[in-house]
Amino acid sequence: MNELGSFVCGKWVKGTGKPAELVNPATEEVLASTSTEGIDFGATLAFAREKGGPALRAMTFAQRGELLRAMSRAIHGKRDELLSIAQANGGNTRGDAKFDVDGASGTLAAYADLAAELGDAHVLVDGDAVQLGRGARLFGQHVYTPRVGVAVHINAFNFPAWGLAEKAATALLAGMPIITKPASSTALVAHRMVEIFVAEKVLPEGVLSFLCGSSGDLLDRLGGQDVIAFTGSSTTAAKLREGRSVVRDATRINVEADSLNGAVLGLDVDEGSDVMNLFVTDVVREMTQKTGQKCTAIRRIYVPTSKVEAVLELLRDRLAAVKVGDPTREEVTMGPVATAQQIRDVREGVKKLESCAKIVFGSTTEANAIGVPSGKGYFTTPVLLHGASPKPGDAVHTHEVFGPVATVMPYDDVAGAAALAGAAGGGGLVTSVYADDKDFVRAMVTAIAPHHGRLMIGSSKVVGQSLPPGMALPQLVHGGPGRAGGGEELGGRRGMTFYMQRTALQGDRALLEAIAKK
Amino acid sequence: MNELGSFVCGKWVKGTGKPAELVNPATEEVLASTSTEGIDFGATLAFAREKGGPALRAMTFAQRGELLRAMSRAIHGKRDELLSIAQANGGNTRGDAKFDVDGASGTLAAYADLAAELGDAHVLVDGDAVQLGRGARLFGQHVYTPRVGVAVHINAFNFPAWGLAEKAATALLAGMPIITKPASSTALVAHRMVEIFVAEKVLPEGVLSFLCGSSGDLLDRLGGQDVIAFTGSSTTAAKLREGRSVVRDATRINVEADSLNGAVLGLDVDEGSDVMNLFVTDVVREMTQKTGQKCTAIRRIYVPTSKVEAVLELLRDRLAAVKVGDPTREEVTMGPVATAQQIRDVREGVKKLESCAKIVFGSTTEANAIGVPSGKGYFTTPVLLHGASPKPGDAVHTHEVFGPVATVMPYDDVAGAAALAGAAGGGGLVTSVYADDKDFVRAMVTAIAPHHGRLMIGSSKVVGQSLPPGMALPQLVHGGPGRAGGGEELGGRRGMTFYMQRTALQGDRALLEAIAKK
Repeated sequence: MNELGSFVCGKWVKGTGKPAELVNPATEEVLASTSTEGIDFGATLAFAREKGGPALRAMTFAQRGELLRAMSRAIHGKRDELLSIAQANGGNTRGDAKFDVDGASGTLAAYADLAAELGDAHVLVDGDAVQLGRGARLFGQHVYTPRVGVAVHINAFNFPAWGLAEKAATALLAGMPIITKPASSTALVAHRMVEIFVAEKVLPEGVLSFLCGSSGDLLDRLGGQDVIAFTGSSTTAAKLREGRSVVRDATRINVEADSLNGAVLGLDVDEGSDVMNLFVTDVVREMTQKTGQKCTAIRRIYVPTSKVEAVLELLRDRLAAVKVGDPTREEVTMGPVATAQQIRDVREGVKKLESCAKIVFGSTTEANAIGVPSGKGYFTTPVLLHGASPKPGDAVHTHEVFGPVATVMPYDDVAGAAALAGAAGGGGLVTSVYADDKDFVRAMVTAIAPHHGRLMIGSSKVVGQSLPPGMALPQLVHGGPGRAGGGEELGGRRGMTFYMQRTALQGDRALLEAIAKK
Repeated sequence: MNELGSFVCGKWVKGTGKPAELVNPATEEVLASTSTEGIDFGATLAFAREKGGPALRAMTFAQRGELLRAMSRAIHGKRDELLSIAQANGGNTRGDAKFDVDGASGTLAAYADLAAELGDAHVLVDGDAVQLGRGARLFGQHVYTPRVGVAVHINAFNFPAWGLAEKAATALLAGMPIITKPASSTALVAHRMVEIFVAEKVLPEGVLSFLCGSSGDLLDRLGGQDVIAFTGSSTTAAKLREGRSVVRDATRINVEADSLNGAVLGLDVDEGSDVMNLFVTDVVREMTQKTGQKCTAIRRIYVPTSKVEAVLELLRDRLAAVKVGDPTREEVTMGPVATAQQIRDVREGVKKLESCAKIVFGSTTEANAIGVPSGKGYFTTPVLLHGASPKPGDAVHTHEVFGPVATVMPYDDVAGAAALAGAAGGGGLVTSVYADDKDFVRAMVTAIAPHHGRLMIGSSKVVGQSLPPGMALPQLVHGGPGRAGGGEELGGRRGMTFYMQRTALQGDRALLEAIAKK
């Protein structure tokens, strides 16, 4: 058995007690096991705070960027190995694995570029100096400095590589050491990444610690200078928000949780147009990529009433071409979901959706997976539903099925679509709007923006250069209000500020300028 | 008995059940009573969300600014009446009352000015558009739009006017309707302000609701588009953070709580210098203004070891001139604390401080208050302590005495002072540093900035134009990490973003520009 270790206090250690098992979701073969029982969490935190923090804070932004560059290169140098691990432990097709692994190295590289722009400074300046009062010398200047604690990163099972890297990029550039924890079920990729970072000595001691398994009482040991960044279910998010440190010590917490992301086809989009084709391509990709296990995947599809039949037809055609099976086989285009629990949840979830919608394509129980031992693996086909009378509060607007499942629904006017795509979703990460009619786009964007962290607008002018709605970009914030957790990550320097304290300095202008330039 | 009402659903209503009593803290005379029992909180929220929200969101920033201007003028027009009420119900001297009431009208006016700058827009643009990918058309643009819920404001007893106004200014300019709740014990000023706003019809219906008493189950009825802004004790803050809406629905919460604000006298400051005089003046003002009941008051004073005796002497001289008594009498310079509970807490708190410091001036039990019936009123003198061996974890670094109480402590070098003024305080709203030595200031500011929301630097160049550390300014953020609650208010447009959702828009550049300009 491949027993995975954690990397804490500058060395690899293995836990005791009953370990969690990591399996291949296509074959159910056990690949490894892991446990964090017996690990000294107090010492882990102290090491990160006392070794990693000062080492990072002594570096300029540009120097921290070099660390990120080295991390990016280290991963890229072992790309093929990491892709294979993702295929085995994650149920990823090679394309899915690239989305995760290349997303990781790309995000680290993007933050390395940002670091170069920030240059030889230690302080992030926030806005211009403002004159206070009538005298000519007294000014105020806001600056961000790194928090002097540790950042605990808790990642979701679906993006073991990208999740680790995007959180690490922002925290390390901001100047905080991290303790990163993957979901146990798919931890092999993250484990290998950390092995690579350690072996290639890309980071100073204490800057990155790695917990492979339960976080035990780690979070209760945090204080007001520490932060938690979590991606996962809203149930776990609620538990973390109730944690002692968050409640009593104002430990900062950032949550990315459930999201019922929408796609809205404009009233003006004709069949056969480029925009219609972009819409259909995006919907099918977002449904099936990573077997629908993306927090940004499209779950709700709003289509003008007169075009519902045509859209259903187009989507059924494309979905029929999806080949489900062992993701290591070249002809397969969609693998299994990641765990036994996930496939149970998908099956139960689709039943919930059937309370307000009818299945018009696919089955969660008869996938006929290609190249897999009979009865093995956590497979489903893509499932498309049609909800003829959508309304706020029904299952499609309250329950996220975390698999290749989406529902097509009709709308009649922009206000109706906005009400469903906006408030009814309870807060989402991203919604995409496909239209050329500027009035439609403007009305839709204005109405649904308060409910979303990101809106993608697909119009004729960007067909061919459009980036998929499901792709979180390092330059743009990733997060959303309400159901989506209320958090924000990435967005260039915006993401760094979570790891820093904003301080207003007031005093003699020349003195403030000298400090801000440091 | 003057029974106070609440203003909800567009009308004044009085609660049933056992009311809370409001007293004059100098005479213990009962001035009024209030209760919110029986008020329909569901209808209160619905009215604010359905009437106030749309009315505000339909207005441009400039138009919302006109509302703030009208609020500012309305208060200023009744200034003398409000000052008298503050003196009676708050134990304020006339100077204390002005600090609160003029702070309120001034902050509203400052946000009205900001509104004029933001102009005829509905959307707050965040940063420049960024090119995405290689094509020339696809861009990203971040914008803020108002959240479509309600902002619940819970204010502290010490600033009934300013607390209401500074939160209202940022929320209303951002585009969110408010439900504002003063602390019951000193609610008379806020109650009169809302009476004035209502009588003068300065706001559209539903934009401002007023709860005079307990908030009952109001907070459990909030959702992901609503927000809570709280100023008060860390104990209450912890309860609010554990509330159902915050935990499950990601209702945003901003907390300003306890703060052990520091003042550091630099190693280079000589007796008799302008900077020494500024330091002593600031310390005495911050100790005694509002009878020390300011979240920004100085509690910890760090002085070079060689100068401790001289500083104690200077402070004792100035404190001896403070006249305690009925704040409506002209010769009185410091009134009582606000409530019976506050004076008990001050007396117990000073005992705690005596575990690590000795009283060198004053008494909490023998105030000999001027012009007050014998044995009546919640009086204390200013109390100065001297802690000869300060260390992290002792009472002076963990317990805030919310009254005219501060402790002088020695330090030997910049690292020693930074450790105590920084991390040992557990997170604070403001610390002031008095020095001309640039290296000292830079080292101190860099070390303690992560622990503070604001740092005031008093140097020769700003003597004469310096603004007191205890004055929260509309242009600069007010808040702090850890013990101080982890929140941020004010800071110009920074404070508005708490009431708005940031959304990344991605699409055709021309289209994004049209939306962002709206």
